[in-house]
Amino acid sequence: MAVCSVSVVPVGTGSTSMSSSVAKCQEILEHTEGVKFQLTPMATILEGDLTVILEAVRRMHHVPFEHGAKRVLTTVIVDDRLDAPLTMQGKIESVRRKLGGRGR
Amino acid sequence: MAVCSVSVVPVGTGSTSMSSSVAKCQEILEHTEGVKFQLTPMATILEGDLTVILEAVRRMHHVPFEHGAKRVLTTVIVDDRLDAPLTMQGKIESVRRKLGGRGR
Amino acid sequence: MAVCSVSVVPVGTGSTSMSSSVAKCQEILEHTEGVKFQLTPMATILEGDLTVILEAVRRMHHVPFEHGAKRVLTTVIVDDRLDAPLTMQGKIESVRRKLGGRGR
Amino acid sequence: MAVCSVSVVPVGTGSTSMSSSVAKCQEILEHTEGVKFQLTPMATILEGDLTVILEAVRRMHHVPFEHGAKRVLTTVIVDDRLDAPLTMQGKIESVRRKLGGRGR
Repeated sequence: MAVCSVSVVPVGTGSTSMSSSVAKCQEILEHTEGVKFQLTPMATILEGDLTVILEAVRRMHHVPFEHGAKRVLTTVIVDDRLDAPLTMQGKIESVRRKLGGRGR
Repeated sequence: MAVCSVSVVPVGTGSTSMSSSVAKCQEILEHTEGVKFQLTPMATILEGDLTVILEAVRRMHHVPFEHGAKRVLTTVIVDDRLDAPLTMQGKIESVRRKLGGRGR
Repeated sequence: MAVCSVSVVPVGTGSTSMSSSVAKCQEILEHTEGVKFQLTPMATILEGDLTVILEAVRRMHHVPFEHGAKRVLTTVIVDDRLDAPLTMQGKIESVRRKLGGRGR
Repeated sequence: MAVCSVSVVPVGTGSTSMSSSVAKCQEILEHTEGVKFQLTPMATILEGDLTVILEAVRRMHHVPFEHGAKRVLTTVIVDDRLDAPLTMQGKIESVRRKLGGRGR
C-alpha cells in the first residue's frame, strides 16, 4: 500500500481557476475501486495499491485535455514502505503522538 | 498571500520514520507569526506572506540536520495569485462548490 | 509524447549516497524501448509515450526495495501537450532561442 | 552548498508556451553572484548557498507576474548534505562512475 499526492495543472487555458479540473479529478477517484483519497489545499492524496494509483493518476492527468486544455503538468509524489503499514491516517497520527496529541 | 506545501525528508539516518522530524517542523510553525499551517499525510501546507513562508521553509529544512541527519531533501510548491485572495480554506471550498457540496 | 522528470529516493538506508540507486534506475531505462532519457543533477528526465513512461517509473520506484531499502519516495513531474510536439531537446532550444543563442 | 531544482509555471496566461518565462528567469540567474546554474528540459538547477538560492527563487517566482500572469506555481526541490561536498557536476560523476563511465 502506498500513499501518494497528485496535482494536475492545466496550462494555457486563459483561466487562473483550477477548481473545476480538481473537482473532475475527484469524480474519477470516487469511481476508482480500492483507492482512498483526501483533498488538501495543494494536492489530492491517494492511498492504495501503487499500480491502481498510477492508473488513476494517468486518468486524472487526462482530465484537463478532455476539457480543452492543450498542456498539462502533473506532479506525483509516491511514499511507499515495506516495514510497516502506510496509511494517510497512520501518517498523521504518528506525528500527532509526537506532538503530545496536539497538531493541526 | 501564498499557499505552499513543504515536505522535509532526512536521508541516510538509518530510520524509515519521518514523524519526529515532521513534528519538530510543526513546532517551528507554531512559533512563526503570520503563517497558518495544516498537516496533511504528504506535506505540511502553509498560508501567508511568501517571504515569511520561505524563511520558515529554510528553518524547517535545517531541523533534520540539528537532529543528526547528514543529508536533507526538501520539496516546496508555491501557489500564488494576484487576481483573487488565496487561502487554504478558499481553495478547498471552491472545489467543494463544484462538487455540489460533497467532497472529501 | 510527454517529457517527465523522475527522482527515486531510498529512505532509512543508513547511507547518504543515492548514486547506486540512480545508476540502477538508469540501467532499467537503457532497456526500455521507446523512452529517451537524460540524467541531470536533480532528476532523470524521460521522453516518450506517457503509459510507457509510467510503467518505467513503477519499475524505477522498486529499485531501492530490491537493494534493501524499506521506504522509497518517488517524485514524478509530467509535462504533456497536444498543440505542439514536446521533446527534451525542443524545450531547451526554445529557451535558448529566446536568450539569443546563449544559455547554459 | 546546496543543489536545487526550480520550476516556475505561469497559470492562466492563455499561452501554452513557458520558454519566455524560463528565459527571463535565466537572465536573473546570470546576474546572481555565487550561484551556478544549468538549464534542463524540466527545471533549472542551481548550486550555491541555500539562503542565496532561496532569494533567487523568490525573484524567479515573480517573473511571470511582471509579464502579466495572474497566478504562478513554483516547485523547488533542495538537496543539501553536510558529510560531503555537493555539486551538480559531482552528483552526475558519482552516478557515471557506478555505470562504468557510460551514462547519458
